[in-house]
Amino acid sequence: MDIKQVRADFPILNQQVNGEKLVYFDNAATSQTPLPVLNTICQYYLKENANVHRGVHTLAERATEHYERVRQQVADFIHAASSNEIIFTRSTTESLNDIARGLGDNILQPGDEIVISIMEHHSNLVPWQELAARTGAKLKYIELDNHQELDLNSATEQITPKTKIVAVTAASNVLGTINPIKQIVQLAHHAHAWVVVDAAQYVGHHVVDVQDWDADFVAFSGHKMLGPTGIGVLYGKQDLLNIMHPVQFGGEMIEDVTRQRTTFKKSPLGFEAGTPNISGAVGLGAAIDYLNKVGIKNIEKREQSLANYLLPHLQKIDHLTLYGPQDHHTGVFAFNLDGLHPHDVATGLDLEGVAVRAGHHCAQPLMHTLGVTATARASLAFYNTKEECDQFIQSLVAVKEFFSNGLG
Amino acid sequence: MDIKQVRADFPILNQQVNGEKLVYFDNAATSQTPLPVLNTICQYYLKENANVHRGVHTLAERATEHYERVRQQVADFIHAASSNEIIFTRSTTESLNDIARGLGDNILQPGDEIVISIMEHHSNLVPWQELAARTGAKLKYIELDNHQELDLNSATEQITPKTKIVAVTAASNVLGTINPIKQIVQLAHHAHAWVVVDAAQYVGHHVVDVQDWDADFVAFSGHKMLGPTGIGVLYGKQDLLNIMHPVQFGGEMIEDVTRQRTTFKKSPLGFEAGTPNISGAVGLGAAIDYLNKVGIKNIEKREQSLANYLLPHLQKIDHLTLYGPQDHHTGVFAFNLDGLHPHDVATGLDLEGVAVRAGHHCAQPLMHTLGVTATARASLAFYNTKEECDQFIQSLVAVKEFFSNGLG
Repeated sequence: MDIKQVRADFPILNQQVNGEKLVYFDNAATSQTPLPVLNTICQYYLKENANVHRGVHTLAERATEHYERVRQQVADFIHAASSNEIIFTRSTTESLNDIARGLGDNILQPGDEIVISIMEHHSNLVPWQELAARTGAKLKYIELDNHQELDLNSATEQITPKTKIVAVTAASNVLGTINPIKQIVQLAHHAHAWVVVDAAQYVGHHVVDVQDWDADFVAFSGHKMLGPTGIGVLYGKQDLLNIMHPVQFGGEMIEDVTRQRTTFKKSPLGFEAGTPNISGAVGLGAAIDYLNKVGIKNIEKREQSLANYLLPHLQKIDHLTLYGPQDHHTGVFAFNLDGLHPHDVATGLDLEGVAVRAGHHCAQPLMHTLGVTATARASLAFYNTKEECDQFIQSLVAVKEFFSNGLG
Repeated sequence: MDIKQVRADFPILNQQVNGEKLVYFDNAATSQTPLPVLNTICQYYLKENANVHRGVHTLAERATEHYERVRQQVADFIHAASSNEIIFTRSTTESLNDIARGLGDNILQPGDEIVISIMEHHSNLVPWQELAARTGAKLKYIELDNHQELDLNSATEQITPKTKIVAVTAASNVLGTINPIKQIVQLAHHAHAWVVVDAAQYVGHHVVDVQDWDADFVAFSGHKMLGPTGIGVLYGKQDLLNIMHPVQFGGEMIEDVTRQRTTFKKSPLGFEAGTPNISGAVGLGAAIDYLNKVGIKNIEKREQSLANYLLPHLQKIDHLTLYGPQDHHTGVFAFNLDGLHPHDVATGLDLEGVAVRAGHHCAQPLMHTLGVTATARASLAFYNTKEECDQFIQSLVAVKEFFSNGLG
């Protein structure tokens, strides 16, 4: 990977913030978007823009062809069996909500159980909590083990014949861990439960093969994989999409509408009510092209190499608590400095040009389990560098010293 | 209005299609997007891109400030009392579905009535039909009068003390008519019903004053007012948003999440689950800037002038049926040529470079009322010209002659 060439595609990285060179380490919140993606979106508006699926004129045909071509690209990218299994949504959050409401409301009975993990993002937690409240089902949690990784023993205990849905993240947005999706799917399928995978933090960082996982549903977002905001994906196995109900109604998702009754199209169009985010899908397609050009395996390797470099440097800082396992880590590092509020840490780092996040990372039950209300979080992407890791560590030490001097 | 300067901002209009000069008359499906909007979106990704509401670092603050600035712009643009009444959605369709599910499911009892008009787009029809089916409420229709306009007598008959929700479009996407929203609101409020206005075809063409309308909810889309796809608006009066429930869950819309229970933020953030379409909102803000610069009243005047020019020319064509009133029309013209399928008409026009739509225009119950299954539809925008109207009429005559020769 020619990192200079890569970084030239991300002009936003080449700027000063508060008089310092920007180090963007907030990639788990959103990735940055390279020039080829922006160019593709602009070319769409300059040459093709029209509403899709509804027109016979040339622009409408171009727009529809492009939109549907991206659907096939997404299917290929995650190794889906068919592009009919790819539904465009706004985001991971919408995808997960659609499954909970469109499938969950129709299949769950009082006493049925939904099993999720305690490390889930609110978007893969609150929809199930609300579904449980609507249907009388019970929400249960897979706990962490002693290394703050998902405990497979707990999964084995929690998933029972009463379980109808298991929803887990493929990669934690806090702990720097990857979950054993294949094993969880096996446990769930053995119990005749369906598995929903939140892949927001996984897609774009690792090769995804939904058929190898044998996952029933997978959700992810464009803006976390170099694409624009406002576009997400819901993958579902065809036979499950056939029994899922649409959640929103209107536009081209219908087959026939009379005054008192409507029939709906099948997947995918039956689940895409109203004008979709066409330019968002077009941008997502360009993002996939970019990821494929750099190579997902190269990206995975580079990110792991940066993470391996950063891990011991972080651990060497006195009075720093790193969450998640201590002997290995993805590029996501949640941490606290003793006696400092993570917001102060993030603000201090920002003054040094380093962008990290601070807060509960939309994972309050996990925070509670970790015994904190918030953490700082640095998260890497393949376009980051070792020099940026160094600047981050130096800045963190400076922030720590500033506060200990100030408070000392 | 300097139309040359305006058209220079829309390079997509300056192209040949099938060897002919493009005439884009499909503006009711989607408007085109001017260069300043594209530039603003690109500048966002080149300088500001970060996730909103969650970060203390500089990029996150820039992105959040920009996103919230657009919310205020939207509030000002439609004369809302507060930016807290502006919720960003994907589209008009999502906005309408959110009202139906978030408010409708909580207030409707069996026997209550929902009143809509027979000219509604499926997006302002099927959500109410489905809501009626879920709650046991009854869905009733305001009919057309003899001029194929909304019949206020029918509205007076249909809206009764049993009515809880009245949902109507401000401007038809088929008939070329504008509805008397203020009078409908008065009728509805007299019956203690709430009014939902589908303004997708109205915003960007006319001045919108939601407080003057006294509408309870208003929905519209960015992509029909020069903005990008994937961004829409739900306006609701603050006290009604306070009793509306969120429909999607996750991300920053929460106040507090425990293992078994969640509390939610108030409007607007409580209704925006997950990462929103930040760049879409940014683009919408630039579109509003553009509309304000040209001037909505100038736009309204120019579009009406083009429509007034086109109306008699269309009516002069033999064997052409124009739907809607015959003595006045907005820039939306649905029509059929005797003996020709509208798809053939649209395909023929496309060969002449003219982009019009053909189909049921997501208004099947209206089509049934008009006694057809489909129509062709030409729809204008302020960036269109009289010369394009002439080319459209000439092409339409040529298509008609081609088919009558071919069939004769």
